[in-house]
Amino acid sequence: MSPKITTELLKQLRQVMKNPKYVQEPVQAYIVPSGDAHQSEYIAPCDCRRAFISGFDGSAGTAIVTEQHAAMWTDGRYFLQAAHQMDNNWTLMKMGLKDTPTQEDWLVSVLPEGSKVGVDPFIIPADQWKRMSKALRSAGHDLVPVKENLIDTIWTDCPQRPCKPLITLDLSYTGVSWRDKIIALRSKMAERKVLWFVVTALDEVAWLFNLRGSDVEYNPVFFAYAVIGMNTIRLFIDGERMMDPAVREHLQLDSTLEPEFKIQVMPYGSILSELQAVGAGLSPKEKVWLSDKASYALSEAIPKAHRYLTPYTPICIVKAVKNTSETEGMRRAHVKDAVALCELFNWLEKEVVPKGTVTEIIAADKAEEFRSQQKDFVELSFATISSTGPNGAIIHYKPVPETNRTLSVNEIYLLDSGAQYKDGTTDVTRTMHFGTPSAYEKECFTYVLKGHIAVSAAIFPNGTKGHLLDSFARSALWDCGLDYLHGTGHGVGSFLNVHEGPCGISYKTFADEPLEAGMIVSDEPGYYEDGSFGIRIENVVLVIPAETKYNFKNRGSLTFEPLTLVPIQTKMIDVNLLTQKECNWVNDYHQKCREVIGAELERQGRHEALRWLIRETEPLIRMQ
Amino acid sequence: MSPKITTELLKQLRQVMKNPKYVQEPVQAYIVPSGDAHQSEYIAPCDCRRAFISGFDGSAGTAIVTEQHAAMWTDGRYFLQAAHQMDNNWTLMKMGLKDTPTQEDWLVSVLPEGSKVGVDPFIIPADQWKRMSKALRSAGHDLVPVKENLIDTIWTDCPQRPCKPLITLDLSYTGVSWRDKIIALRSKMAERKVLWFVVTALDEVAWLFNLRGSDVEYNPVFFAYAVIGMNTIRLFIDGERMMDPAVREHLQLDSTLEPEFKIQVMPYGSILSELQAVGAGLSPKEKVWLSDKASYALSEAIPKAHRYLTPYTPICIVKAVKNTSETEGMRRAHVKDAVALCELFNWLEKEVVPKGTVTEIIAADKAEEFRSQQKDFVELSFATISSTGPNGAIIHYKPVPETNRTLSVNEIYLLDSGAQYKDGTTDVTRTMHFGTPSAYEKECFTYVLKGHIAVSAAIFPNGTKGHLLDSFARSALWDCGLDYLHGTGHGVGSFLNVHEGPCGISYKTFADEPLEAGMIVSDEPGYYEDGSFGIRIENVVLVIPAETKYNFKNRGSLTFEPLTLVPIQTKMIDVNLLTQKECNWVNDYHQKCREVIGAELERQGRHEALRWLIRETEPLIRMQ
Repeated sequence: MSPKITTELLKQLRQVMKNPKYVQEPVQAYIVPSGDAHQSEYIAPCDCRRAFISGFDGSAGTAIVTEQHAAMWTDGRYFLQAAHQMDNNWTLMKMGLKDTPTQEDWLVSVLPEGSKVGVDPFIIPADQWKRMSKALRSAGHDLVPVKENLIDTIWTDCPQRPCKPLITLDLSYTGVSWRDKIIALRSKMAERKVLWFVVTALDEVAWLFNLRGSDVEYNPVFFAYAVIGMNTIRLFIDGERMMDPAVREHLQLDSTLEPEFKIQVMPYGSILSELQAVGAGLSPKEKVWLSDKASYALSEAIPKAHRYLTPYTPICIVKAVKNTSETEGMRRAHVKDAVALCELFNWLEKEVVPKGTVTEIIAADKAEEFRSQQKDFVELSFATISSTGPNGAIIHYKPVPETNRTLSVNEIYLLDSGAQYKDGTTDVTRTMHFGTPSAYEKECFTYVLKGHIAVSAAIFPNGTKGHLLDSFARSALWDCGLDYLHGTGHGVGSFLNVHEGPCGISYKTFADEPLEAGMIVSDEPGYYEDGSFGIRIENVVLVIPAETKYNFKNRGSLTFEPLTLVPIQTKMIDVNLLTQKECNWVNDYHQKCREVIGAELERQGRHEALRWLIRETEPLIRMQ
Repeated sequence: MSPKITTELLKQLRQVMKNPKYVQEPVQAYIVPSGDAHQSEYIAPCDCRRAFISGFDGSAGTAIVTEQHAAMWTDGRYFLQAAHQMDNNWTLMKMGLKDTPTQEDWLVSVLPEGSKVGVDPFIIPADQWKRMSKALRSAGHDLVPVKENLIDTIWTDCPQRPCKPLITLDLSYTGVSWRDKIIALRSKMAERKVLWFVVTALDEVAWLFNLRGSDVEYNPVFFAYAVIGMNTIRLFIDGERMMDPAVREHLQLDSTLEPEFKIQVMPYGSILSELQAVGAGLSPKEKVWLSDKASYALSEAIPKAHRYLTPYTPICIVKAVKNTSETEGMRRAHVKDAVALCELFNWLEKEVVPKGTVTEIIAADKAEEFRSQQKDFVELSFATISSTGPNGAIIHYKPVPETNRTLSVNEIYLLDSGAQYKDGTTDVTRTMHFGTPSAYEKECFTYVLKGHIAVSAAIFPNGTKGHLLDSFARSALWDCGLDYLHGTGHGVGSFLNVHEGPCGISYKTFADEPLEAGMIVSDEPGYYEDGSFGIRIENVVLVIPAETKYNFKNRGSLTFEPLTLVPIQTKMIDVNLLTQKECNWVNDYHQKCREVIGAELERQGRHEALRWLIRETEPLIRMQ
């Protein structure tokens, strides 16, 4: 992978930073955040402004360009990738390391007195604006909104914003109609005494209306906003897709409805002016509810006294707790996904060992091919991480021709992949060796497995926040001086974004919402040795009630049920490092894989993959 | 314990809340925080205003009185005690439970429109003022400073502010002279480009000048402030104690010194006006450093643009990392403390079992008696928690004649106690049974012990924050549906406050500073069954470097070394619930108690206690 040469682009950007056509006054620094106007993690090509200016295309990162410097903040998952993709014009700021300055501190240290720092007000979330604006102001600088996006002004071949057809989801998938979701939302609004709720996150719009799209790769969402009043529903969305009879029928656009359920469809681009009109028409004490991650521009459309900002919206919290239709759908999706992976791993064993002709890209394509054979397959849920040997240490690696390695019997292979099915979203990582792993590789793998089990089998009180479980995943690694520089788990949507809030398992956050039965998260500890190998073991797990011997203060307890049912390679396990309890966990898990996935492989007539599954799920035996 | 009758007092308070002599405009609510003007946790009798108005005298709690209501917020340690000590005028707000409103939310829900909420600006920390003021303002109310403390106006027999003699500590105790501490502080100030630092916490003043006092029971501090400039040192302190030749010599008050080390002694009461003068004399960009927990009154003395507020002061962070003289002192103090407890437990066994004449108060007094026989004993480090049977479930119980139970062979006895020695501060909890514990009691005790060991033996990367270790202490309890409603550990001072920041081990905080070698914290999981018993096992532990097999990113690892060396009653342990590793930990710990404390008991000629120690440290044997 050679870095993008950005010298000329940075020169152009520095020119427009002073160009009165775009800025009222010259800005001495310009911030290019990761997200789009909806603060999405995964974004459409037209929104990949940070990647355009820097070359670094990982899913998280913020670029800041000043007259002298260009710096990129990203987290541990992307240190290697960012270093590879960016040229010498850029300084990599490794977030989470002790000596790395915050963006604010760095700006203060490099800017001349009384500087202006520009940012697109549609891209920066309101809470970040507030924090950064305050820090800059207290150092004598100013954060200023630059209406026209300065990257767009120099991005001559910027792609069009996508506007693809919609998919309607019926009750068998969603469990709740959009009408009932609106009713529930309005009752939450009434509880908080707000009159309006502004839906800005793309997955929240999709969830609320039981619609899906494909405007953003991997995430089945579409560009739209919604503004829900106590008696009105406004959906801001572009394109012919609203002419689709199935969509019109689904949204009952042509039916005679009670007025409070009548959806007014408006142009996507009119959200700001419509919201300003709402803001201008409010009586004293009337409030409008927005996420504090909504863009600064939309947040400012509502006068401050009328703004009701929360870190998590009511939709975000309800969406995270899956209902029975959704969990059953997720179960089905994971069974199909496991079938595809059994086929893949069986195929890999046959191809890699004798022939040595399978590359990372071929393996990734083959995984997609097997998945696409399954019912209700829509697309992948993220770019497949198919990595062997040293590439495995690049945590969010994606094989490209320049880096593409051939799988061999000498290196560890790490596959982190998932798909969108109409009934659910999957995300699974398995780490395999097709030859004979070294004692050290097995040792590291076993520590990671112990961490995976420690989280998966954890029992914890109702109301526990996920971040309190993060250390369980690390304890075995810590004991021998090892660790990994990413969180342990993220929320997973139901045929929606593979990363969703408000829950997760990470040392990095304190603002996660308590875990509840019905939430779905990933459990994915790892260990990475730069230049050598990467190990990660990831299941998607469902939060379920746990039976315990006692019940302190009648709080009840929770635990996890793995939805992912794909064998964990026993060849990589040093059984002597497992406790009897851990050994039993692996055997029980493999027994369930055999039963559930075995039955489905049988049903689909995939006999060779079934034999692979049976072989891979032989019980471990631990010597005392 | 009968509750304090507060009807008349509340009536008087509500009158002064409207009295123009004290308030410019009537206040509809008045907040009575826990602390004093230094935001101390332990306070002098004259500062016990919240206890005076409500009857509840636990170490943490905030009272709010409105025209109609009186409510008290406190945490899980004090739910039972507060409920016992307060009459029906008061509503107990159980912090940490899901349905308990915050003070702000509650105020907003009960206050009439446009209310004024009063508070003493010297008592409320600046950060709390800010948060509360903002929340109230956004609901249309006002937080207003009431200069004269309204409790003081109705507290006719309020005791005098204490002003006791000082103790000077030489280098053999402190390791660093006050002069060198000032030099180090000024270099931190220069790093942050601040010209002044205001020392408001009493333990920080004491630590900085290597002085100790006894103005506050249990905490060897004295009422004082300090303002440190780059060339000046001002100490605000009252009384004849500054006439003591030892103190004058220690502070070199009568020597010819370089002017930047010359200490100007000023009256305690002049801090506000002096600070206002400092604030008024600042040039643009000149900054004054204060803790954001400093009082609103002092914080406001510095114009906002000149204020540099941080959650932890440089003194707080340096003070937490003990130097060799301090850790050696802490070790000596813990050896002496263990000798006293071996004597006590031996004595209890002789008295309780055959005679049954020992009450909680007698046991507490006896513990103090044995401690006072040890070299350099100064006082207790907190009110001894000597509790048997159901009293043990009151987490911060202190025996009083009305509640005093007799120790028996039928109930669990919990003793949480500690002392101030000139060389260190101790804090230890042991839970004992003098008869035959039930299987259930042993089971619960063993889960608590497993949690204690999980923290004490944990190995974790350098830079880990203590809150990430909290769940280790709970895991064994969680597994069977149990838990405890308090944090797992707090920082411990070196002949200073038994609770100190900035580190600790608790699920409740995210703002703790990373653990470093040399820091000292407690490790004290527990289990409490209301109405039945309480179990807690507490050691004070020192953070030390850990040897590990590998060393990821060269970060280095840490672990804990127990400073407390007092046997953990093996009779209470269900050995079959321990892993072999846990069993070895107990045996190794007891071996060390035998060696270190045994030698000291021998040296002090305490042969009977030595025999008790030998008996109590017999190795556990675990059946496979």
